[in-house]
Amino acid sequence: MAESGIRLYYKNVTAEVIGVENGITDAQFDDLVAEFDGRSSKTGPLITELNRQRAAGRTPYRDLPYNTEYPADVKQLVSELAGRCENFVVLGIGGSALGNIALQTALNPYMYNIDDAQRKGRPRLFVFDNVDPVQFGSFLDWVAGRLDRTIFNVISKSGQTVETAAQFMIIRRLLLDKIGSEGLRNQVIATTDATKGILRSISEDAGFRTLIVPEGVGGRFSVLSPVGLFSAAMCGIDIDSLLAGAKDMDKRVRCEEFSRNPAAVIAAINWHYYNRGKNISVMMPYSYALRDLADWYRQLWAESLGKAKGHDDKQVDIGPTPVKALGATDQHSQVQLYREGPNDKLFTFLQVENFNRDLKTGPAPAPAPELGYLAEKDMGVLLNSEKTATEYALLDSQRPCITVFFPEVNARTVGEFIYLFEVATSFTALLFRINAYDQPAVELGKEATFALMGKPGKKDRDLARQIRSLTEVDKKFLV
Amino acid sequence: MAESGIRLYYKNVTAEVIGVENGITDAQFDDLVAEFDGRSSKTGPLITELNRQRAAGRTPYRDLPYNTEYPADVKQLVSELAGRCENFVVLGIGGSALGNIALQTALNPYMYNIDDAQRKGRPRLFVFDNVDPVQFGSFLDWVAGRLDRTIFNVISKSGQTVETAAQFMIIRRLLLDKIGSEGLRNQVIATTDATKGILRSISEDAGFRTLIVPEGVGGRFSVLSPVGLFSAAMCGIDIDSLLAGAKDMDKRVRCEEFSRNPAAVIAAINWHYYNRGKNISVMMPYSYALRDLADWYRQLWAESLGKAKGHDDKQVDIGPTPVKALGATDQHSQVQLYREGPNDKLFTFLQVENFNRDLKTGPAPAPAPELGYLAEKDMGVLLNSEKTATEYALLDSQRPCITVFFPEVNARTVGEFIYLFEVATSFTALLFRINAYDQPAVELGKEATFALMGKPGKKDRDLARQIRSLTEVDKKFLV
Repeated sequence: MAESGIRLYYKNVTAEVIGVENGITDAQFDDLVAEFDGRSSKTGPLITELNRQRAAGRTPYRDLPYNTEYPADVKQLVSELAGRCENFVVLGIGGSALGNIALQTALNPYMYNIDDAQRKGRPRLFVFDNVDPVQFGSFLDWVAGRLDRTIFNVISKSGQTVETAAQFMIIRRLLLDKIGSEGLRNQVIATTDATKGILRSISEDAGFRTLIVPEGVGGRFSVLSPVGLFSAAMCGIDIDSLLAGAKDMDKRVRCEEFSRNPAAVIAAINWHYYNRGKNISVMMPYSYALRDLADWYRQLWAESLGKAKGHDDKQVDIGPTPVKALGATDQHSQVQLYREGPNDKLFTFLQVENFNRDLKTGPAPAPAPELGYLAEKDMGVLLNSEKTATEYALLDSQRPCITVFFPEVNARTVGEFIYLFEVATSFTALLFRINAYDQPAVELGKEATFALMGKPGKKDRDLARQIRSLTEVDKKFLV
Repeated sequence: MAESGIRLYYKNVTAEVIGVENGITDAQFDDLVAEFDGRSSKTGPLITELNRQRAAGRTPYRDLPYNTEYPADVKQLVSELAGRCENFVVLGIGGSALGNIALQTALNPYMYNIDDAQRKGRPRLFVFDNVDPVQFGSFLDWVAGRLDRTIFNVISKSGQTVETAAQFMIIRRLLLDKIGSEGLRNQVIATTDATKGILRSISEDAGFRTLIVPEGVGGRFSVLSPVGLFSAAMCGIDIDSLLAGAKDMDKRVRCEEFSRNPAAVIAAINWHYYNRGKNISVMMPYSYALRDLADWYRQLWAESLGKAKGHDDKQVDIGPTPVKALGATDQHSQVQLYREGPNDKLFTFLQVENFNRDLKTGPAPAPAPELGYLAEKDMGVLLNSEKTATEYALLDSQRPCITVFFPEVNARTVGEFIYLFEVATSFTALLFRINAYDQPAVELGKEATFALMGKPGKKDRDLARQIRSLTEVDKKFLV
């Protein structure tokens, strides 16, 4: 069906398929087009507006697919490290981890870390995006005897990210203790701001090799920068194809004709349903490989679109809640709710047309002729039939569904997908009239953590006292 | 704070803390008590009612902690297999996988499958709960040369579960091809119905050893049966303590005094908020070990509580959508939405009071005095400070929060937690007046899959035709 690239399919949100109460009618679709072409908007045509923002340098993430320095820097480092890195460890969180994990799950074998044969001489990949002493301790026990064959890639634009800083301080001491300051210098590579910040200073002082977190690109939009490209290239992922896919998609999402622009259509459908009480947006890949792209999307969508607008009495809190599900697995976990629970969700399926390999089931065992219908079938055919069957059942319950079809899963189509959803996020924010690129609401929690960890200063001490009095356990409410 | 067992803390849902618009007032709390003590209910006091259902044998999952045969059967098999099993593979889906995964993540080291030293002679564990040919193929490539040291535990009550049947047929052929029918018999263990069903017939024919899926215990309530116990015991988890923890909790959740019954309080708070437009229930452990318990809860909650009630015009679709999040990781992904997005969520945190180990950060690097506040701190203290900080920030935005405190993570507290949320589910269903134990809405998808896979019969062929005409791609809607 699809010629080369990924394709969006949206018939199953129309009133024709799921009825006028939950489906989009022709008149409503015209309204969405009007919203985009500027007839009902103060900002003018939205696609033109986003193209204008891009030209004005206000969406620097849009330039990443065209940047040639970043992939060259990354490849240079990869070739320097060839043959002396058995384990590659990312220390990062949020946008400095989710894209790295998503690329690895999508484009390397399931058994990559365990099966030397499938890894083909590349390093194992570990991504630590938490500060759990039990989890991290288990890893340290294992890696302690392997430090000289392990590269630690610390990723933080500022170096102030408390989780990444804590991890780094532990690793730094371990390296210094076990293999000394030269070992530290050789085994750590920092991805950070080009000129300023704590991690830049530390890197210069210690002599770390570095890669750049580009200016103006927020963490959740950074996977196509050195943040995501370095671990991917180290693990054998074709980053040129990844970027080429993003470039292909860029042509499509610049198109000013709404109905030919997949990012605009995704944004319009999401905005339409959120405004009509469907506050949950489920992304459900029918492919293990695409599973963690749904988690990457979860951050992109939540941090970009979860925004308060206006002030005081006029404040409106906006934001669909993104939910990650996995087909066929979650048919046995969530589909009961998805069909019979409240009609409060929009479903986005990801479907693979041609799996990179397939498996035949084998014959039905003799005492089970009931399984005859499954004999000698392709597992990929079964998985896609389950997707169709689930979508059919959801449509039967008037639930709106869109599908992104992947002709196959490879670096190029994954690059297309990433860029498609980044731009769809920008369009959705334009429709909501909110800023997709900031995250003001996370500041209070960060300040509270600093205060609780004893950051010096009267303001911090006062805040710590206030937090403790609010969150101190009152036994009256303990069961 | 907690003496021995896990504790529920719910002060941060009160109007006193988060205000009258989003908090529970004293009057509303009295209404919840009234709902439970039967003053405002047709069924009479709900705790008495659930205790009565249990005594009448209508909730067989409640008996699992007291069953002595199941753990004995499991331990017998574990000792038979000792020394000849390097890899243990669960083939199951939904309730035949999520509990197994949750126990393993909670109670074994993060590096268990990779680090022989941390595995201490026990088998690696793999749980396959999907039919993805790329994922499963990667595993088959690795396991093909290790079949005689690998046990496959096929779990399905009926044997008709299409995903598990397909996996089993592939493994069966592989075993027959590589190590013959004796190898097949030795390497497969079925967990299935005691007397009937396809998998029982196949097992008898092939001579498989078997364990029992108890009668009347739905998949999502089966983790404390041989379904969950076998893989756990094989991997060294203390299943006696797990069951002892569940027994401890059973005493607490039978208590007819509402305010001393943690399952009743959880149910009441969830019901209260769902009825007031908070249709999303986020479970957010601040512990990697507890991460997959949130996924187990996701199935328990969604399949049990996502239910349509009444018919035709009077049908009401019920069901909070459970969402899994992870602290501190998701502070960098979801907390922006959680604070500034719509106030449509109830938060359930899981917090560990004493981590099984801790790690000190080390000194701040010289060029970064800004990190002085983090020097020589415990990572576990940081993680718990982040939980407190995030809760503080959420309370500042009037979002309701409850916390389950684990004194530590071990088999006993995990057993308590599982049983607590199972019974909380039963109470919540009583409040909604729905059946927690069926899942009628998944049938249509199953039938549709059978039809699409070519199950013989006119009805199936007609259904397949209907599905194809509805889901066939219409290029007009393809972008």
